[in-house]
Amino acid sequence: MRIYWEDTDAGGIVFYANYLKFFERARTEWLRHLGVEQQALREQTGGMFVVSDTQLRYHRPARLDNLLWVTARVTEPGKASLTIEQRALLPQTGAEPALLCEGSIRIGWVNATTLRPERIPARVLEALAAGNQ
Amino acid sequence: MRIYWEDTDAGGIVFYANYLKFFERARTEWLRHLGVEQQALREQTGGMFVVSDTQLRYHRPARLDNLLWVTARVTEPGKASLTIEQRALLPQTGAEPALLCEGSIRIGWVNATTLRPERIPARVLEALAAGNQ
Amino acid sequence: MRIYWEDTDAGGIVFYANYLKFFERARTEWLRHLGVEQQALREQTGGMFVVSDTQLRYHRPARLDNLLWVTARVTEPGKASLTIEQRALLPQTGAEPALLCEGSIRIGWVNATTLRPERIPARVLEALAAGNQ
Amino acid sequence: MRIYWEDTDAGGIVFYANYLKFFERARTEWLRHLGVEQQALREQTGGMFVVSDTQLRYHRPARLDNLLWVTARVTEPGKASLTIEQRALLPQTGAEPALLCEGSIRIGWVNATTLRPERIPARVLEALAAGNQ
Repeated sequence: MRIYWEDTDAGGIVFYANYLKFFERARTEWLRHLGVEQQALREQTGGMFVVSDTQLRYHRPARLDNLLWVTARVTEPGKASLTIEQRALLPQTGAEPALLCEGSIRIGWVNATTLRPERIPARVLEALAAGNQ
Repeated sequence: MRIYWEDTDAGGIVFYANYLKFFERARTEWLRHLGVEQQALREQTGGMFVVSDTQLRYHRPARLDNLLWVTARVTEPGKASLTIEQRALLPQTGAEPALLCEGSIRIGWVNATTLRPERIPARVLEALAAGNQ
Repeated sequence: MRIYWEDTDAGGIVFYANYLKFFERARTEWLRHLGVEQQALREQTGGMFVVSDTQLRYHRPARLDNLLWVTARVTEPGKASLTIEQRALLPQTGAEPALLCEGSIRIGWVNATTLRPERIPARVLEALAAGNQ
Repeated sequence: MRIYWEDTDAGGIVFYANYLKFFERARTEWLRHLGVEQQALREQTGGMFVVSDTQLRYHRPARLDNLLWVTARVTEPGKASLTIEQRALLPQTGAEPALLCEGSIRIGWVNATTLRPERIPARVLEALAAGNQ
């Protein structure tokens, strides 16, 4: 993920709230890779994921033009919600990637109209189970 | 309108795309002042405003903690669309406010489901006409 | 704090990452009320606050045109960092305000050039102490 | 460029101001492809590009999960500023890509400290000239 002007603030570094966006992009691509398209799923099932809890810890800043790696790993799969551990890393030549930000994001499945919690569709759970093996 | 960290970029100034947000906030408050609440209107009429054209010219930058004035004035009221002239100004002690950004925003009324153009509801046109006097 | 189009997402509700912005705006105004202007302080001391940890819990969604109240309260004042408890509430007629989101934000003071941690300037600590009484 | 939740609004479509971000990302990658890295250039020359004028016309909306193509083409290369014509397109199976948004962005080169206009560095102009052939 590339850092653009839109991602930075007057401190010269990436605005901290934007890591929630980077983490969401990575989750979305990881779900897409497992065969789960959120817009299509909403049209088919009437449901969608919503974020219920976020915890982020910031270690080092990122800057304009940096190229970040962002990871996603399910740690607590449930019937109606999931916890996903995520990390943003800055690759470095001749060294381990530097950890910029790590976080834990809890997402629940809701009815898109009423926003009431519902069970995650079976095909999503199966895709996640297959992805974790 | 106050400038926060979220509004700035690594150049130390307000990120230019954000003036579209400031202009929208000012249009919304101006409509609200004329008795037009967009969310309520959508529920009542099934329609909403969408932006079809924007032109912005940037004169001077704004910075963190600046307090901006933003103006809105209808210049081309039509049956299905409006053009609104807007300016962002920085008040200065002992001098005229400095012009930071000026723009022209064209908005059209659409059916919120199909996104097809429709006539602006009469009560909105009446509120705008009253507001321009 | 008013909710505008810019704050919402295709779920029809406020995009969850934006509560970090709302909380920052409230912290900034609370500091300003205590006499602490961040941009002026940076020019005078060469330092600035950076966010090191965030925890947010989402209870109910906000929607377009909602008017939110956002609170801020220091819970762990230290020499080099602070923890601030914050809540976003939706006032309701004839009922208690509804809790939308609550969070805990840890901020540290750093040298604005090197981004290394430093002691919070005495005048900021004094302002905070006065504000908590 | 993929559309994520962060890019959408409560109308169910991409928030119009975000096309300025998409266009900027495309310009940045196009400059990078020509060998121009903005952060490195700023450190070497003390200068940076700033946007002075934007004109956008919106034709059709984009939605969550859409994959957009964004183009960039210099039309008015000058000594101190450039105009870049840009388009956002939605590829379609069995049809021409649909035009979503087209715009014209004028950028000038300034001293990063004083924000005063300066001549675009020769190596940037050479890279652009080579890229336009």
